[in-house]
Amino acid sequence: MRDVTIGIVGLGNVGGGTLEILAKSGDEIARKLGFRLRVGAVCSRSVASKTLPDGLGEARRTPDWRSVVEDPGIDVVAELIGGTAVAREVIEGAIAKGKSVVTANKELMGLAGVEIWRAAQARGASIAMEASVCGGIPIHAVLREGIAGDSVDTLFGILNGTSNYILTEIEAHGTDFGVVLGEAQRLGYAEPDPSVDIDGYDARSKLALLASLAFGVTVAPTSIHTDGIRRIGPVDFAYARQIGCTIRLLGSARRGEGGLFLSVRPALIPSSTILAGVRGAYNAVWVKGHFGQDTFYYGRGAGPLPTGVAVVSDLMRVAREIQYGDAKRVSPFGYSEPGAAQVLPLERQQRPWYLRFRVKDRPGIIAEMAGILARHKISIDAVLQLPSGDKQNLPFVITVESTPESQVRSALTELSELPFLVEAPVAMPIEGGL
Amino acid sequence: MRDVTIGIVGLGNVGGGTLEILAKSGDEIARKLGFRLRVGAVCSRSVASKTLPDGLGEARRTPDWRSVVEDPGIDVVAELIGGTAVAREVIEGAIAKGKSVVTANKELMGLAGVEIWRAAQARGASIAMEASVCGGIPIHAVLREGIAGDSVDTLFGILNGTSNYILTEIEAHGTDFGVVLGEAQRLGYAEPDPSVDIDGYDARSKLALLASLAFGVTVAPTSIHTDGIRRIGPVDFAYARQIGCTIRLLGSARRGEGGLFLSVRPALIPSSTILAGVRGAYNAVWVKGHFGQDTFYYGRGAGPLPTGVAVVSDLMRVAREIQYGDAKRVSPFGYSEPGAAQVLPLERQQRPWYLRFRVKDRPGIIAEMAGILARHKISIDAVLQLPSGDKQNLPFVITVESTPESQVRSALTELSELPFLVEAPVAMPIEGGL
Repeated sequence: MRDVTIGIVGLGNVGGGTLEILAKSGDEIARKLGFRLRVGAVCSRSVASKTLPDGLGEARRTPDWRSVVEDPGIDVVAELIGGTAVAREVIEGAIAKGKSVVTANKELMGLAGVEIWRAAQARGASIAMEASVCGGIPIHAVLREGIAGDSVDTLFGILNGTSNYILTEIEAHGTDFGVVLGEAQRLGYAEPDPSVDIDGYDARSKLALLASLAFGVTVAPTSIHTDGIRRIGPVDFAYARQIGCTIRLLGSARRGEGGLFLSVRPALIPSSTILAGVRGAYNAVWVKGHFGQDTFYYGRGAGPLPTGVAVVSDLMRVAREIQYGDAKRVSPFGYSEPGAAQVLPLERQQRPWYLRFRVKDRPGIIAEMAGILARHKISIDAVLQLPSGDKQNLPFVITVESTPESQVRSALTELSELPFLVEAPVAMPIEGGL
Repeated sequence: MRDVTIGIVGLGNVGGGTLEILAKSGDEIARKLGFRLRVGAVCSRSVASKTLPDGLGEARRTPDWRSVVEDPGIDVVAELIGGTAVAREVIEGAIAKGKSVVTANKELMGLAGVEIWRAAQARGASIAMEASVCGGIPIHAVLREGIAGDSVDTLFGILNGTSNYILTEIEAHGTDFGVVLGEAQRLGYAEPDPSVDIDGYDARSKLALLASLAFGVTVAPTSIHTDGIRRIGPVDFAYARQIGCTIRLLGSARRGEGGLFLSVRPALIPSSTILAGVRGAYNAVWVKGHFGQDTFYYGRGAGPLPTGVAVVSDLMRVAREIQYGDAKRVSPFGYSEPGAAQVLPLERQQRPWYLRFRVKDRPGIIAEMAGILARHKISIDAVLQLPSGDKQNLPFVITVESTPESQVRSALTELSELPFLVEAPVAMPIEGGL
């Protein structure tokens, strides 16, 4: 089957991430699609000075986007330059040539997305925009397809990573807003002019586009009530805590009588909700469906590679359409030819472990067990014992450092035979990397 | 544009939920698709005694599934009977007639899904299975399309709602396993024979199918190491807490050297991870991607309506393929003709509010403020004050009961003019329904 050829216009953060994935993941992408994605051209004003990743093959380099959209060898154009002026020319130029377009441009798609899509329809082209909102969360695929059968009642989002980083730093350390903002700027998490992030404008653009997807309406970002987080301080977190809440900058779109309630503003949310667990520069979207009830989506909001994943996923979708003409050839398994799994023996997997025992207490128990563990080359991390009165049935726990499961199992076999055990040990891995 | 006509085979929980959504949501579905989904036939052995929801039009009722799959008026068949024998005949019968199939059948698709898909490909039909795993979470759409561009390193899942309910009850109340299981059985959350749920077999089937999607390999469920939760008790949660962890029944699939590590077993996870916030009969899937890093998906694992959403979403996807021949006509906005939003004034929205003041302390402040709130018909919920030494700049908070925002705003205008305020009040809604 022939390759599908891509032209990348824009080699900034997102363009760079996209190229890196295409270069490193070419074989896996081909396994999913059943054919290869090839980068035919890359375009940026400063293309001459860019270092491209290995593994891309011979992509043409050009500073002239027109030569990309007009190249008859290019099947799909990825518009990754951002802004609304040139980007629109690129997209409309590609569509005019009947090429499908993948874009990461939330401003343009919020402003003129429906118009652009109609132009694409008229030319038999696709327009795909997964990367435009919450780069790392596939929320477009979710709303457009995954839960298309539901009717969304409310959508809540933590849509700006910078604001969420600042708020959760205040929450964790009780530091004042200005101090945290300064740190964030020093670390590169916040821009020198932070207004777009901390005054809610970035979240507002995202909410406008998400509301389109959730409710099938176009929303002008300026019609959304928007407050930022400048006035939120440690004292607010302290009070919020008193009533079982924390504070997040929340974008909210809710179906009301005859329309939508829309807002971006700091809000108190219960500390027990999973949304309160969104800390640092992450984004999250909570959807309350009329039929499917609560669903929740979480991931990186930005970053070259997370956003690159969204671009590449869209490129794959569009490439399938080009290749197959229709969607029926898309495997429900996501891979064109699923193979048989090689299941690896868990014995090789290394984890810290939790080992819980119940014993008839007597002197020397710990020493005996520690001896067995040592012979199996297992390092003890901690011995835990809760206060307990019953010396005939005394629970206690040994946690051990990361060890191949084979060693843990053989030690357990030996430990299980100790005469002072009341029952067989309970053993669980500790999954720390979450 | 003509209707696309559906035959529903199986009217149990999932079939019932699917019909309810199709009946109630017909107009919204048509707005998304640009054409109508019509139920042409419903089939169940006991169809004569079933009450169908209003709004379905004149669907033919039959106890004979063959008459549905062979009906030339039916475009798509939804197989919702479960099991592997008759279900397979239904699916293969429909495919043999060139009809696309939507199924909720995790056992069958885990066992013979690739074979079934190849048969569908050969006949130019689609097979869609979003409802087969984690009904309420659109994890198939996510893995197949949304993050197709990533390369999954690890997938963790809380895949069995019953087990998670039991574990989180033990966690919350310190009750013994047997007692919680009994309660769960009494409440209908657990089956009279609970083994499939609590011994991990249900989670194992789901993990096998998810691993197929994430890694492009077929996995025999029996090749997955599986432990249940029977031995986990309050003492384990107490110890886990001592090391900052809690316990969940975790399905895990991880890329290793030359293959996959696969397991379903109780594991300790850090209490700070968002996965630890999954409580009750919910499911969740955590994906660690090589490029996109962490993403997390959460929702109902089962239930007629959440699973019905998955079935209806698949029906819509397949219907688009039938109608348009190719996928390019699918709106990136999810709706065929996005309209303009009616943005409602937030003033109409009712919420409890958090009002934070800084004042120069003197007697009578609370009385004066309470008087203003009362005149605006706002009920105070609580007055909160933290210990503070600075009487010239004393923060305190008033939370008020759910009130239309118009009243809150006009009260705030008046409150802002009080002479003893050090700065303008900080006001935030309290979003409790999360």
